[in-house]
Amino acid sequence: MRIKLSEEELATHRDGIKKVMDEKNIDLLCLFSPRDIFYLTGLYLIQTERPAGLLFDGKYTTAFVPTLEREHVEELGGVDEIIAYGEYPGETHPVEQLAGVIESRNVEKLGVDSDGYTGGMGYQGPSLSEVLEVEIEELPRMIEDIMQVKTAEEIELIEESCRWGNLAHRYLQDYTEPGKTENDISTQASLDASRVMLKTLGEEYYSPKGASLPASAGFRGQIGKGSAIPHALTSNATVKEGDVLVTGALANVGGYVSELERTMVVGRPTKKQTKFFKYMVEAGDIAMDAIKPGAKFSDVDQAVSDFYKENDLEEYWRHHTGHSIGFGGHEAPYFDRFDDREIKTGMVVTVEPGLYVPGFAGFRHSDTVLVTEDSSRMLTYYPRDLESLTV
Amino acid sequence: MRIKLSEEELATHRDGIKKVMDEKNIDLLCLFSPRDIFYLTGLYLIQTERPAGLLFDGKYTTAFVPTLEREHVEELGGVDEIIAYGEYPGETHPVEQLAGVIESRNVEKLGVDSDGYTGGMGYQGPSLSEVLEVEIEELPRMIEDIMQVKTAEEIELIEESCRWGNLAHRYLQDYTEPGKTENDISTQASLDASRVMLKTLGEEYYSPKGASLPASAGFRGQIGKGSAIPHALTSNATVKEGDVLVTGALANVGGYVSELERTMVVGRPTKKQTKFFKYMVEAGDIAMDAIKPGAKFSDVDQAVSDFYKENDLEEYWRHHTGHSIGFGGHEAPYFDRFDDREIKTGMVVTVEPGLYVPGFAGFRHSDTVLVTEDSSRMLTYYPRDLESLTV
Repeated sequence: MRIKLSEEELATHRDGIKKVMDEKNIDLLCLFSPRDIFYLTGLYLIQTERPAGLLFDGKYTTAFVPTLEREHVEELGGVDEIIAYGEYPGETHPVEQLAGVIESRNVEKLGVDSDGYTGGMGYQGPSLSEVLEVEIEELPRMIEDIMQVKTAEEIELIEESCRWGNLAHRYLQDYTEPGKTENDISTQASLDASRVMLKTLGEEYYSPKGASLPASAGFRGQIGKGSAIPHALTSNATVKEGDVLVTGALANVGGYVSELERTMVVGRPTKKQTKFFKYMVEAGDIAMDAIKPGAKFSDVDQAVSDFYKENDLEEYWRHHTGHSIGFGGHEAPYFDRFDDREIKTGMVVTVEPGLYVPGFAGFRHSDTVLVTEDSSRMLTYYPRDLESLTV
Repeated sequence: MRIKLSEEELATHRDGIKKVMDEKNIDLLCLFSPRDIFYLTGLYLIQTERPAGLLFDGKYTTAFVPTLEREHVEELGGVDEIIAYGEYPGETHPVEQLAGVIESRNVEKLGVDSDGYTGGMGYQGPSLSEVLEVEIEELPRMIEDIMQVKTAEEIELIEESCRWGNLAHRYLQDYTEPGKTENDISTQASLDASRVMLKTLGEEYYSPKGASLPASAGFRGQIGKGSAIPHALTSNATVKEGDVLVTGALANVGGYVSELERTMVVGRPTKKQTKFFKYMVEAGDIAMDAIKPGAKFSDVDQAVSDFYKENDLEEYWRHHTGHSIGFGGHEAPYFDRFDDREIKTGMVVTVEPGLYVPGFAGFRHSDTVLVTEDSSRMLTYYPRDLESLTV
């Protein structure tokens, strides 16, 4: 049972980055993105108004954090050295202090993921190039691009996430009945799934991103007519007989997530509901068939597009067929007709060709799918058929 | 009972921005920040890989969104016009399409909050200045600065948030007992408070940011020795007799939040626990006394610093005394010794001078405080004394 990346894996990540640095004659890397810092260390430093960054010289890692994070980072481990500055804004701006640290390393060429800290929450500060007299190369997508192809351990974490998303969804379906509100159903399902998840995984479970509910499931407002709005927001509607519901469930394991979404029908499905449901499921099958290493992301979306066109359903289609997923809930590349990037073994993607009929209902399943050596395999395993999804 | 900003208030916001535009000879404004768009429209457009923005010509608002958001925005209202593009990445990049819309308006000078979309989730795209031949003035902090002083309606929303944070915290305290895990306590408290909140506020309640739990309370790992780590993360520790607990509760009302944090002791407090607790509470009182219009933010932090120095407690101090709050959980300015910005009537801030004793425990209350005409008033009203906080 894997609940976080191993030390060995993180060391492999650092070795890979060191090679890129060598190729580019970069002798020091400065990272600000929480994702990029996580990739090298397993540490997830939440972005606030207080700058935090990571230095990597190809061998050693140095976390540059505010004093209030020192003991936190010490306890979490993952870095060789911690340099703590007082506070933001403080007497000397933290980024100027960071520049001082970089200068003391006799750097000839600095690599950065962004030219300065980008934290938000009212943060203001200079870019590194404004306060440093050193050659800087920006590599904003170096780690993002590497992370597109998942490692065996990352896939294990995503599969573990699927397991708990599945449980949350099962509770969601079990608790769904006419007269209950969206919030009543979803909070109880999320609470119960999170409890079982934590009791099963034990005290070692740790969510780097700090989720208060490790597993959750809900409707995000996609209830009844609201189901026709792809990104509705929670509004606490009451479930009624005859409603179509579009769900979503996820769980956070070691920093990784998965996506499980289903269309459910409350009471006996009507002919019209059944028709759209079946087309949507078939579109998912068509997408699955099109996913194989060497094909393009656009091929998959095109297959779905052709299918919907053939069946006069194009007007009900609102978004492309899916996206990559893993550390982020949405990652590139996307199953979009105009995204010609190549599908590669080890990528993890969502398949979710939805149909949305304004004023009537929306229909969307989303599954998390691994690209295998020669085709693809669903990592989510919740039933997809209408009978199983009728409550 | 106020649960969202009124149409009149939003119109006032737009009028204020129009004045700034007139002063700067800006004939069209293009906003990408969800906060900035919310300020003009009440709409909160979540940032994904699909660009979304708002155009404002001083009179009319136009939302530029992906097709899948069209019906969503139509339903939410708040804008005069919606222009929907197909999909990201799509055949023509959405930002190029947006540039086309801007060009069609015969703009001489464009104001922007950022020179391009900054969504993340794998998004890539050009800046506006790369695709537009028009004078552009960047105003990244125009709306952020205006929002530092809260309006009467904003204060009402923050007070309403305090009420529900208080309830979540009450449940949290009620459910806390030795042998229970962090997650068991906090998820039950959050669920119960959210349910009561939604049943009380009714179906009109709407969380623009889409929180799945409208009210929540928890410990974020600050349990026992973990309480000494200011920004610990949830780790599901078990509560034990003798533990010091540092809590946090919040609720989202109409896009606005508040902050309520308390230090609780499980079982009869020891002398050492009592000592640090009392100093921490006294530091909060000292900060409150220092908050008045016309003083500087740094004055407040300096007063706390002096008090901790006098009492040999400086080594246990890890972060400044507080921050502004409202639409964002952390906003500028900050109660920091080096933040000399002026305290103004109508600002809302947190007061939270914590003490952290490594290996022993941490002590922090945080209250949400309104700057009044001549001093300040706590909007949070949960008990602050040790007796009330002993469980």
